[in-house]
Amino acid sequence: MDPHFSQFANRLRPSAIRAVTKAVHGKKLISLAGGMPHPGTFPAAELRSLAAEILERQPVEALQYGQTQGYGPMIDEAIRYLAGRGIAGLKPENVLICSGSQQALDIAARIFIDPGDAVLTDTPGYTGAMSAFEHLGARLIGIPVLEDGPDLERTEAILKRERPKFFYVTPNFANPSGVLMSQAKRRALYDLAHRYDLWILEDDAYGELYFSEVSPAEVVPVKTFDTDGRVIYLTTFSKTIAPGLRVAVIAAPAEFISAVELTKQTADMFTGVLPQMLACEFIRQGHFAKRLPGLRQLYQEKRDALDGALRQHLPDARWIRPKGGFFIWLQLAGGIDAQELFKQAMEAGVAFIPGAGFCLDGGGRSEARLSYSREPLDVLARGAQVIGNIAAKSYAQNLR
Amino acid sequence: MDPHFSQFANRLRPSAIRAVTKAVHGKKLISLAGGMPHPGTFPAAELRSLAAEILERQPVEALQYGQTQGYGPMIDEAIRYLAGRGIAGLKPENVLICSGSQQALDIAARIFIDPGDAVLTDTPGYTGAMSAFEHLGARLIGIPVLEDGPDLERTEAILKRERPKFFYVTPNFANPSGVLMSQAKRRALYDLAHRYDLWILEDDAYGELYFSEVSPAEVVPVKTFDTDGRVIYLTTFSKTIAPGLRVAVIAAPAEFISAVELTKQTADMFTGVLPQMLACEFIRQGHFAKRLPGLRQLYQEKRDALDGALRQHLPDARWIRPKGGFFIWLQLAGGIDAQELFKQAMEAGVAFIPGAGFCLDGGGRSEARLSYSREPLDVLARGAQVIGNIAAKSYAQNLR
Repeated sequence: MDPHFSQFANRLRPSAIRAVTKAVHGKKLISLAGGMPHPGTFPAAELRSLAAEILERQPVEALQYGQTQGYGPMIDEAIRYLAGRGIAGLKPENVLICSGSQQALDIAARIFIDPGDAVLTDTPGYTGAMSAFEHLGARLIGIPVLEDGPDLERTEAILKRERPKFFYVTPNFANPSGVLMSQAKRRALYDLAHRYDLWILEDDAYGELYFSEVSPAEVVPVKTFDTDGRVIYLTTFSKTIAPGLRVAVIAAPAEFISAVELTKQTADMFTGVLPQMLACEFIRQGHFAKRLPGLRQLYQEKRDALDGALRQHLPDARWIRPKGGFFIWLQLAGGIDAQELFKQAMEAGVAFIPGAGFCLDGGGRSEARLSYSREPLDVLARGAQVIGNIAAKSYAQNLR
Repeated sequence: MDPHFSQFANRLRPSAIRAVTKAVHGKKLISLAGGMPHPGTFPAAELRSLAAEILERQPVEALQYGQTQGYGPMIDEAIRYLAGRGIAGLKPENVLICSGSQQALDIAARIFIDPGDAVLTDTPGYTGAMSAFEHLGARLIGIPVLEDGPDLERTEAILKRERPKFFYVTPNFANPSGVLMSQAKRRALYDLAHRYDLWILEDDAYGELYFSEVSPAEVVPVKTFDTDGRVIYLTTFSKTIAPGLRVAVIAAPAEFISAVELTKQTADMFTGVLPQMLACEFIRQGHFAKRLPGLRQLYQEKRDALDGALRQHLPDARWIRPKGGFFIWLQLAGGIDAQELFKQAMEAGVAFIPGAGFCLDGGGRSEARLSYSREPLDVLARGAQVIGNIAAKSYAQNLR
């Protein structure tokens, strides 16, 4: 490392997901690795016709410098959309459009974290967020995710002795655990945050992708409880329209949005306007609402396919069956080493992400994140079979 | 400011340009403020047809998650393009595509700067860069820009007693001074950097937009001298295709690119692929090369229009006539207060940027940046007339 480089540069580490997805890129593999939407879901035809229309009618607006806070009509559309999700009363000064929710995570981290600061996060948790926090020197405190969401007793015990900058939570079908936080726990989490003056960073990438066993009332965001302005809510259209658009939304108290705006001004000045116009028109014209039932059904079928194949091929492993989202968090039986399983699976043409990278305090060594989002149904089944065969061999060897 | 917020958040300040451009947004004004390309230059028809083609033939590639380093063919295209600019021998590991060159400035700053670190920068200089450095706690040391580029004697005197992290330079038609650094000075700057082990951050947003009095040999980047890997070169297609694309290029030693890639991974994961495919095809199919002569001629006519009108309406002011780029850096006569002139000009419907925001050490109070890039010829002349009339009145009052 060059001696001119900063402390920040010295903390840079590739995330667990990145190491795998970069290795997988361009290879012919069955990929249960990245959390990529099923390519068949991309509304290319609609976006093509919207792009033509926009570049015909509003070429200058689409191609000129844009405002840092976002394209005005997209901000309005986001306010309407979030009202529909139960987050009422947002004003334009509470909303900012950013280049994917990863940007929101990084900017929020920059606004809160000085080196050494404590931050609470789900464990297992989303590595993209953890990396952003760690690069800034945060001391991550993992809160174990139980079947109904984070362990709040543990959380309160920590709050009694520490003043963490915020709690990063993913209440809807968390990446990687797949867990849906109960509404009672959301209420309790908010009350706890209120009592201990704690900010909540709520990342809701998967809230729209709930399956038939879940009612819409169960995915209502923590942000809806936010009477004293301590919840920063993030959502993205990466999973529900297309990641390539890079359009995500932050909803938060005006003071925070104002700090985000100043940060974004120097971070990348503004989010491309054409993609914002595409997302805005796509929602405004009703394409977005119309496609959600189909997306839910598709990912449910894919969940069923992987879940079923795992039951068949890894009968001894355990997992909480996800009720939405993209991931199954597999707990391997017999202490199988997930990293070793990963190596052998890659050789056999199947990729997934070993669990350790998602976990704090040394957990996840016998766990793995399997994504059912991208591959077709039959490929998911084949992937599970390959993993199952290798696991069975390892299991047999472990027993010997 | 919330007590949870970081030192970084406490350093956030709006830049001088931002304060004005935000005030100007959506108002019916003659704007000599923002450095916006002339809207008539946006190749909307070509981009429309390319977008349709790309979304027809490669919808998944355009809309799916992309690689952090950039879209492969765009990296290859950037290498070919930079070879044409004289920067030979780049390999893919030396190039990264980012979301506008502002992102490159911010990421470079994060990789180099710890709070309190010294950084050298042109003064007057680009406020977007200065803000990015200052937000990270840099101690900016301004190097005055002379008629042929930065004052290197001053630079060497500082290097004898300080170890700045890098020198931020804008050799081609600097924002806001308009100055073209001589080739001899570029060589001398590089030699100085070599002797004092100094990194150079070279920002080349305007190098393609040279006027007829300049030969292409005069705009050859400092990067072309870089035998020992200490120049980070930035260029953008914001001025030559469209800012809305958010496609810029970093060329640098592999070790630095690798740190940028890890930073960008947490900063925004990847730059939208569709815009990269648009820029890539636009260049590959020859549209880019074909349009440059016309762009140069257009901005030269606009420079001539504003330059001529200023001679007529502000006969006592002085400026170095820019030989390329977007800006005239006006030195007002008779100690006129640029901030006061700005207020009165805004009331009369004309915007520009007062000089103080571009300067370190309290300079720029009687200076102003006037951009001729956006407005049509007749509007530029009217803008100069309005400013001239107000200045004449102020001048008369100052003399009384």
